Amino acid sequence: MQYRFTLRQKVRDYECDLQGIVNNANYQHFCEHARHEFLHAQGISFADLHARGIDAVVARVTMSFKTPLRSGDEYLSCLNVSKVGPKYVFRQDIYRLPDHALSLRATIDNVCVVNGTLSMGVPELDALLENEK
Amino acid sequence: MQYRFTLRQKVRDYECDLQGIVNNANYQHFCEHARHEFLHAQGISFADLHARGIDAVVARVTMSFKTPLRSGDEYLSCLNVSKVGPKYVFRQDIYRLPDHALSLRATIDNVCVVNGTLSMGVPELDALLENEK
Amino acid sequence: MQYRFTLRQKVRDYECDLQGIVNNANYQHFCEHARHEFLHAQGISFADLHARGIDAVVARVTMSFKTPLRSGDEYLSCLNVSKVGPKYVFRQDIYRLPDHALSLRATIDNVCVVNGTLSMGVPELDALLENEK
Amino acid sequence: MQYRFTLRQKVRDYECDLQGIVNNANYQHFCEHARHEFLHAQGISFADLHARGIDAVVARVTMSFKTPLRSGDEYLSCLNVSKVGPKYVFRQDIYRLPDHALSLRATIDNVCVVNGTLSMGVPELDALLENEK
Repeated sequence: MQYRFTLRQKVRDYECDLQGIVNNANYQHFCEHARHEFLHAQGISFADLHARGIDAVVARVTMSFKTPLRSGDEYLSCLNVSKVGPKYVFRQDIYRLPDHALSLRATIDNVCVVNGTLSMGVPELDALLENEK
Repeated sequence: MQYRFTLRQKVRDYECDLQGIVNNANYQHFCEHARHEFLHAQGISFADLHARGIDAVVARVTMSFKTPLRSGDEYLSCLNVSKVGPKYVFRQDIYRLPDHALSLRATIDNVCVVNGTLSMGVPELDALLENEK
Repeated sequence: MQYRFTLRQKVRDYECDLQGIVNNANYQHFCEHARHEFLHAQGISFADLHARGIDAVVARVTMSFKTPLRSGDEYLSCLNVSKVGPKYVFRQDIYRLPDHALSLRATIDNVCVVNGTLSMGVPELDALLENEK
Repeated sequence: MQYRFTLRQKVRDYECDLQGIVNNANYQHFCEHARHEFLHAQGISFADLHARGIDAVVARVTMSFKTPLRSGDEYLSCLNVSKVGPKYVFRQDIYRLPDHALSLRATIDNVCVVNGTLSMGVPELDALLENEK
């Protein structure tokens, strides 16, 4: 599978819970961080967007948990993005390294709220999709 | 709508991110805490299960984010549970208080791993479903 | 020992790490939440202060960890506050319930930054000290 | 200043709170991650130690917060370690990049609990100090 953006990271021990595996809510953090790093690589800052009254917010999350990550594991966080109506749809997969076992498969829908109102999208994020072609 | 279990909680400021709203990964934490408190109310401890080699793990999460929670908000975390094959399916809703605006609607599938092997379920959790009738 | 404010809370399982005890960084969260709830009880909101350009920030933390908290534990989060120069000094203790074993003893110095500049304090927080007498 | 170990990391947006700066409890996480990565570089795993009945636990933390880290910042997490009685004393500094402004200065005392009993230290951690000379 081909991805638009990949980020290599390492599990931090405090992300593991008493079962010794990464707590499932942390995968949502991993996905957010990959999205924001992807935006950053395109010159777009989540914090700057917020300062300008543009808030990218998560509308819907679907996550399937496969091989759990553990203390000491490295992982590859991968994403693709498309647009469906007002939604920026991120398909995000996380693979354990070095064996590339699939750890998480997620679809995360984001919408933009501009000065408090749901928008159909913002030009800089749409431009990012154009570049994709 | 009727729920099997409800838990009243308050947003903690550190759960809010730079947008001033609760970070979306924290809702997964809120849901987990409600599930574990529900189990606890039935005399079942997540930590004890783990100590006995029984790990309830999240297999799949679907979350729809509605009204965002903010600093100072209280919320009601509500759940129902059923079983589909080996999956304990928790339907979890979070309502902002005092206006009961729906904040989150989630479906969270859990499976039990017993000494490292996926099981069809464990008696104490199944008993919990029996009680539901 | 007498405290100005106390808050009863329960450990959430995701706050425990792979050692099965509450991860030490979470005690800092517990202390922050107690301070903010204390302020809230006095009609002061951390988020509102921020919106008005007043940021209470932590300058220094000293924490001694005693009895660790575990899954299922309840705890009492207690605080006193005084002022030393520009610093609001919170002395915060956390006790495990029901045996009141001391779990954490902390001193947390906060200062106020007003529109980006360190201030000698803000009237609403100073008033709070007056009330203490 | 010379350090035994340094780790370059990047702020993740979910680590920032509603003030737009990294929440202070997260610096404790940053310090823990640097310690564990340091151990890992020496072939010692925090999770393996736990599995063998050896728990390195934090006994005391002193943290002075200087320049706050923000969204998009990279930082250098640095440490030295020495032993005082049964305590492994980590001196940990965090610098913002690229300007190397000091962000955090911390001293974190750890002790080892072996099968539930406070120990004077464990050979593999002591060896690590010997190597330091």
